[in-house]
Amino acid sequence: MTTPLRLGIAGLGTVGVGIVRIVQKHSALLALRAGRPVEITAVSARSKTKDRGVDLSAYAWEDDPVTLAKRDDIDLFIEVMGGHEGPAKDATEAAIASGKDIVSANKALLAIHGQALAEAAEAAGHVIRFEAAVAGGIPVVKSLTEGLAGNEITRVMGVMNGSCNYILTRMEDAGLSYEAVFEEANQLGYLEADPELDVGGIDAGHKLALLASIAFGTQVDFDSVELEGIGSVTIEDIHQAADMGFKIKLLGVAQMTGRGLEQRMSPCLVPDTSPLGQLQGGTNMVVLEGDAVNQIVLRGPGAGEGPTASAVMGDVMDIARGCRISTFGQPANTLRKARAARAAVPAPYYLRLKLLDKPGALAKVAHALGEAGISIDRMRQYDHTDTTAPVLIVTHKTTRTALEEALSDFKSTGVVSGTPVAIRIEAV
Amino acid sequence: MTTPLRLGIAGLGTVGVGIVRIVQKHSALLALRAGRPVEITAVSARSKTKDRGVDLSAYAWEDDPVTLAKRDDIDLFIEVMGGHEGPAKDATEAAIASGKDIVSANKALLAIHGQALAEAAEAAGHVIRFEAAVAGGIPVVKSLTEGLAGNEITRVMGVMNGSCNYILTRMEDAGLSYEAVFEEANQLGYLEADPELDVGGIDAGHKLALLASIAFGTQVDFDSVELEGIGSVTIEDIHQAADMGFKIKLLGVAQMTGRGLEQRMSPCLVPDTSPLGQLQGGTNMVVLEGDAVNQIVLRGPGAGEGPTASAVMGDVMDIARGCRISTFGQPANTLRKARAARAAVPAPYYLRLKLLDKPGALAKVAHALGEAGISIDRMRQYDHTDTTAPVLIVTHKTTRTALEEALSDFKSTGVVSGTPVAIRIEAV
Repeated sequence: MTTPLRLGIAGLGTVGVGIVRIVQKHSALLALRAGRPVEITAVSARSKTKDRGVDLSAYAWEDDPVTLAKRDDIDLFIEVMGGHEGPAKDATEAAIASGKDIVSANKALLAIHGQALAEAAEAAGHVIRFEAAVAGGIPVVKSLTEGLAGNEITRVMGVMNGSCNYILTRMEDAGLSYEAVFEEANQLGYLEADPELDVGGIDAGHKLALLASIAFGTQVDFDSVELEGIGSVTIEDIHQAADMGFKIKLLGVAQMTGRGLEQRMSPCLVPDTSPLGQLQGGTNMVVLEGDAVNQIVLRGPGAGEGPTASAVMGDVMDIARGCRISTFGQPANTLRKARAARAAVPAPYYLRLKLLDKPGALAKVAHALGEAGISIDRMRQYDHTDTTAPVLIVTHKTTRTALEEALSDFKSTGVVSGTPVAIRIEAV
Repeated sequence: MTTPLRLGIAGLGTVGVGIVRIVQKHSALLALRAGRPVEITAVSARSKTKDRGVDLSAYAWEDDPVTLAKRDDIDLFIEVMGGHEGPAKDATEAAIASGKDIVSANKALLAIHGQALAEAAEAAGHVIRFEAAVAGGIPVVKSLTEGLAGNEITRVMGVMNGSCNYILTRMEDAGLSYEAVFEEANQLGYLEADPELDVGGIDAGHKLALLASIAFGTQVDFDSVELEGIGSVTIEDIHQAADMGFKIKLLGVAQMTGRGLEQRMSPCLVPDTSPLGQLQGGTNMVVLEGDAVNQIVLRGPGAGEGPTASAVMGDVMDIARGCRISTFGQPANTLRKARAARAAVPAPYYLRLKLLDKPGALAKVAHALGEAGISIDRMRQYDHTDTTAPVLIVTHKTTRTALEEALSDFKSTGVVSGTPVAIRIEAV
């Protein structure tokens, strides 16, 4: 093949501009590697006049991404606009309808509409690839879909939202409260326009749902991801966890259990000496486990112009080279509907609660745990104040259901003040 | 495509048996993912009667891998025999000549004959893939060749020989000498039949040369890899390095410099808090740096039945799916001959030397360094014995040439006893 691969780029924000830069700077290298030229034909964005620091004069301009998607002179539609409804969805559908391959960085769109979009594209003989939608510059979709294609995948884990990891590590390093660091991160522009997408775990949950689909051959099921954000993590918990040899991370875990597919995105304690525990700042890390390979760990920048554009270009180059893998690693119409299993896999938990200063208070709490079938690994009382005594408990492995029963029983003991904190400890 | 992909496997050692196990266990999963059945047609090994714990009765048997390679009923020849001459080379050439695609785990063969083999295969319209030849189960060839295809690669680094990393971490953990741990590792079967392949850095050097070819678009040039094994690393150096916040790793580094391609495989000091510094035991780690992605780090098992077979199957599945990437990421006949640059990139060095107990001895050494243009970052004298005083020096950045000049000048000072140890400190 020596005919050029002609790209249409919808969206000229950070990532779109990054793609333009790579195509312009490395045109010879890309052609050499792909065996054919890779060229930009047309672009679209909201403002034609904005100075983006790159020369767009050689490309046709479209105000409307849908019109761009339908152009006869593009082979591959690159969607780097974002948003799971509206123009991004309309343009992606238009690209499929007009016979284009698609490379997308849009995790929300794919996590919500991925099944329908992939089925439509595959029915038309075209592909949708989305490396840039998960963990930025890390080739994790490729590693999972292709590199580990000989494995039955047993578990996928990861820290996949750099903003949350920045907040958690910054809290620890500076000894600041969640609220203070959230404000700081927001001022620095580290958070989405709707910060809840980041700190609520939604963005990371989208990514986890996409990886789970590939890993387990199931239809993307974002709605079943058990989501818990980092807003309830206190600096006190971070310090206590550190004292016991743990870090708190917003960790995604997907695994197939006897009871169905478990997908969780929630704050977890991980050993501070583990690769996940050592992850600082905005870096992402994904752990892939398969029956043959055992475990591989991939680490890299989770966002930013260069890394995200690098991931988009990886997909573009695959298509230029004639590698056309199904969106989720097998034909979309063969993906099974997953049965959702809520936190089926038992784990130890970290509990922090305030006990009223009454005789036998600790015994009552221990009794409530015992009644729920939960045994205690370690317990520590500290910083006794006038009226309450904070207590830390690390349990042995238990289920979320048993834990919730115990937490509910705590209320009736009459010795627990406020709402206890419960954070899962993940073996990594 | 629904016609089966028919495999011929040459070599039924650990890896070959691992491949058989995966194909037998996951035939439905592989077919679903590839869109076509993946089947074993024929196998070959030295002994037909040996019990390997897998049922081979459904496959044709060949005593000679060359005959296997020529069979009309295989599409893909899998070479997991090893050895860079003899049957492995003959069979690979026969497979090319008879129009087969090839998946190889043979780093030595490819590092030495890869250019000729790739040219021959590509001229015939076939591919050679070799994920399993580098860093076991880690999809590093794929990440570099495909995932980062939009990047100009700036540096490739890695710990790619698990046996050496096992020896170095075991020395530190148990406080044992190199000789003691080498013996232990040999008894445990961790070392190649010719241990020098491992501890001499040759095996890891083969892997580095292969990655460098992909990274920089140059013909594999194993002969230009500066090789230094771990045999000269003492437990004393490991302890001293630890005291200063470093670990000693057998580290490969390849980078393109203004003076040419630098490829080194040698013991290096790396910060103990860095991902490379924290790597324990037989695990491998590869660091890939590109102009867009910045840096990604891949970690996983460097050897073993499951991980290596997983890597082979990743390549097999690519070919089953119709992904046919050039062996070195661009047509072999477009790879440039690299100009070899010997340790062109300056670095700080760790020096350990024994000074005779004479007045002004330290000043003479410092003077010799100064004369060679090398400035001292830190110096430490310790454990003074009757006749000599060990001295540690960490230099500021210098070239290998300047360092060798200084080391040579040390001799003429008359105050240095024995041969100084010099280990590069790599910024990671």
